[in-house]
Amino acid sequence: MSELALAAYAEAEHDRIVDTLFSWLRIPSISAAPDHAADVRASADFCQKLLVEAGLEHTSVLETGGGPAVYADWLHAGVDAPTVLVYGHHDVQPVDPLADWTSPPFEPVIVDGECRARGAVDDKGQTLYQIEAARGLLALQGRLPVNLKLLIEGEEEVGSPNFESLLVSEAGRFSCDVVVVSDTGMISPEVPSTTVGMRGLVAFDVAVRTASTDLHSGMWGGAVANAALVVARLTSGLHDEKGRVTLPGFYDRVRDLSVAEQASLDAQPFDENEFRAAAGDVRYLEGEFGYSPLERVGVRPTAEVVGLHSGYEGPGIKTIVPATGGFKVAFRLVPDQRPDEVDAAFRAWLAARSPDGLQVTVTPEGAVSPALTSLDHPAMAALSRTIELVWGRRPLFTREGGSGPEEALARVLAAPLLFLGVGLPGDRIHAPNERMVMDQFWKGLLAAGELLMELGGR
Amino acid sequence: MSELALAAYAEAEHDRIVDTLFSWLRIPSISAAPDHAADVRASADFCQKLLVEAGLEHTSVLETGGGPAVYADWLHAGVDAPTVLVYGHHDVQPVDPLADWTSPPFEPVIVDGECRARGAVDDKGQTLYQIEAARGLLALQGRLPVNLKLLIEGEEEVGSPNFESLLVSEAGRFSCDVVVVSDTGMISPEVPSTTVGMRGLVAFDVAVRTASTDLHSGMWGGAVANAALVVARLTSGLHDEKGRVTLPGFYDRVRDLSVAEQASLDAQPFDENEFRAAAGDVRYLEGEFGYSPLERVGVRPTAEVVGLHSGYEGPGIKTIVPATGGFKVAFRLVPDQRPDEVDAAFRAWLAARSPDGLQVTVTPEGAVSPALTSLDHPAMAALSRTIELVWGRRPLFTREGGSGPEEALARVLAAPLLFLGVGLPGDRIHAPNERMVMDQFWKGLLAAGELLMELGGR
Repeated sequence: MSELALAAYAEAEHDRIVDTLFSWLRIPSISAAPDHAADVRASADFCQKLLVEAGLEHTSVLETGGGPAVYADWLHAGVDAPTVLVYGHHDVQPVDPLADWTSPPFEPVIVDGECRARGAVDDKGQTLYQIEAARGLLALQGRLPVNLKLLIEGEEEVGSPNFESLLVSEAGRFSCDVVVVSDTGMISPEVPSTTVGMRGLVAFDVAVRTASTDLHSGMWGGAVANAALVVARLTSGLHDEKGRVTLPGFYDRVRDLSVAEQASLDAQPFDENEFRAAAGDVRYLEGEFGYSPLERVGVRPTAEVVGLHSGYEGPGIKTIVPATGGFKVAFRLVPDQRPDEVDAAFRAWLAARSPDGLQVTVTPEGAVSPALTSLDHPAMAALSRTIELVWGRRPLFTREGGSGPEEALARVLAAPLLFLGVGLPGDRIHAPNERMVMDQFWKGLLAAGELLMELGGR
Repeated sequence: MSELALAAYAEAEHDRIVDTLFSWLRIPSISAAPDHAADVRASADFCQKLLVEAGLEHTSVLETGGGPAVYADWLHAGVDAPTVLVYGHHDVQPVDPLADWTSPPFEPVIVDGECRARGAVDDKGQTLYQIEAARGLLALQGRLPVNLKLLIEGEEEVGSPNFESLLVSEAGRFSCDVVVVSDTGMISPEVPSTTVGMRGLVAFDVAVRTASTDLHSGMWGGAVANAALVVARLTSGLHDEKGRVTLPGFYDRVRDLSVAEQASLDAQPFDENEFRAAAGDVRYLEGEFGYSPLERVGVRPTAEVVGLHSGYEGPGIKTIVPATGGFKVAFRLVPDQRPDEVDAAFRAWLAARSPDGLQVTVTPEGAVSPALTSLDHPAMAALSRTIELVWGRRPLFTREGGSGPEEALARVLAAPLLFLGVGLPGDRIHAPNERMVMDQFWKGLLAAGELLMELGGR
């Protein structure tokens, strides 16, 4: 790949870049944990320092009311050059269950060509190769082929509660012609792909109470309501026997795939055993009747129970009828479903299924609209060429199942989204032993540089 | 009640007895918690000291392999007097959720005539009035009307795992004509009752795993198995739409009530609002179709989900598909259901409902057969007279929903069971703010003395 602009830079700077990655990964910037707020801030400060060292300008830590974001730019490519905003995030997921990690989550190691740590691929690693690509081009050429802005968020893993208002209040500073997001993945290094759509999300925490206190099951069991059974009946009722979500009207706005997207989906290789192994030794598949696993994870809306709890969970048995319990549910949405409509449908569904007298508390846990980029946009052609240059094959077009602040970026900034993401299906993001395959990291760095050159017209 | 043998004793010794109760309740003898093993032992030592001070003989702490039991006797009533074995237990339930206690669980207080502490009624308080009754009669009369044995267990709250083998190995020492159990309750002080049967118990812990690790719900959600949904579907499937337990053959051995028991059951007062309030502000009732709440808690077998868990339960949301989960279920059994048969039925039920590939681990958490005492036994007449003397009204005959080691006592010692229990429906046993209504405690002390005199033929 010596023809690629940053090949020599990546080789010469290899050790420094790995050291930088490790230093960043050692900061436990868990945005969901209030006691890690100082770490999220330390991560933002670290990121700002990287941006300064890269030669970018106007670097600043942006207060949001929650975890701070980081911004920098380089705006000297001229008025005819496009302006590109690169998005990433520096906060990470919680690490439990900690016992399942083979090495501590905030002590990065490279084993078998994989960097293992929380945040390795989601998203510090992917953010770092974008920063290093800009640094490399500035170092080699003294300039960039585009006007570049970088916006590194600090609250992505908690649903970006302040991101849209930040975008709105700083819309002038962030204005751009195209947004490049590096927070996604591809099918495999041999079958590179890019995301053209992302599922949205509406999530809820539901708490139920059936009595003022847990009750002795010998004395009361059989006659009083059992909160554990309430939780079980509600959550098991989220799907019908065909695996379809039972919320009224849930599928009404689901848009059919375009011909090009359906063709790309049909061209994707699929082997159930490989799919299950990549997911982490998944024992069996299930889902909506009439759709393939790839359709289920990409283009169909879902309801996932993220967690549930009730009663006694310690060692042995406690002979109680539990009085309280709860569950968390995340609905993944596809175009043109609307979070507000699904919110209303869920509340109606819950009310209809709650026995009279049950005390139910619903807490919204974030809402993101689904996002979709047109395959016909010229920037998509630039991304497609870039991926072919670096991975040796034209990419397939997929939809990412995940949600993020992308929809707000596209909508508020009125710019198309490009997804340059090097994650792989076995990366265990949000789970123990998250990894970045380092060969993908270096390809990501090369691709980030090439994409800026493609967008700048070479 | 000055005509009762121990009335003056109870009044004179009031403060010392309350101090003794408080001192015992301050020992956190939680048998389910390994880190409280030393407290269970301290509680046994405390109990032994009480028995020595009461004037009983052969006092000893009996090692069981788990929490120690305590034994004492007084065997000088002569060969024509009956031998009575009194059963109680000195271990207590865990205290979580600790935040729901209005005062610390191991700092007993008396408020509104109630002693509030873990173990107040289950079972240190009920054990103490038995010990004090023996002490009082010995102090007043220099002898007891029966040959008395006391056996105070230390593992009742964890299902008495070593109790039956203790009974078998010490059967000679424990041999008796009648067993008196003080670990139950009555309908109300105005409607005294005694238990003639107790439901048995078979309990299980079930752990499931659908994958090697939690998965990102955006990436995999909709296609892979969700352990939280597995838990929800299994537990919600324990009952059919009529509230009947779905295990094959579960009801085959359930014996019809005798005419006397049905009459006693029909005579019990029942007010749904009072019943729900006594249970602790229970929001609504449910259960097996075609049976009243009192039938459901006493004479019908049940399946209770004691606890369930899966996935993320912390603040906010985590966008995962959980890979592991579990639940605990306790089946309450009635005559003539057999724990071994229900065990086999549960395992078959679980296998039939588990998707191929699901990893399921079943751990037995105790098994106790149901117990039933004949209403025709002369000792039952003695108990009935005793209750009428102390509470002013002949008792109704009920079945207790709870299980304990009583079945093993009756079977191994081949003796009828009498239940002298002063607990009340609102005592919150196994729950936060457990209480002993002190008026019931003092009546229990008087009744324990009267019962020995009745059994000794006055």
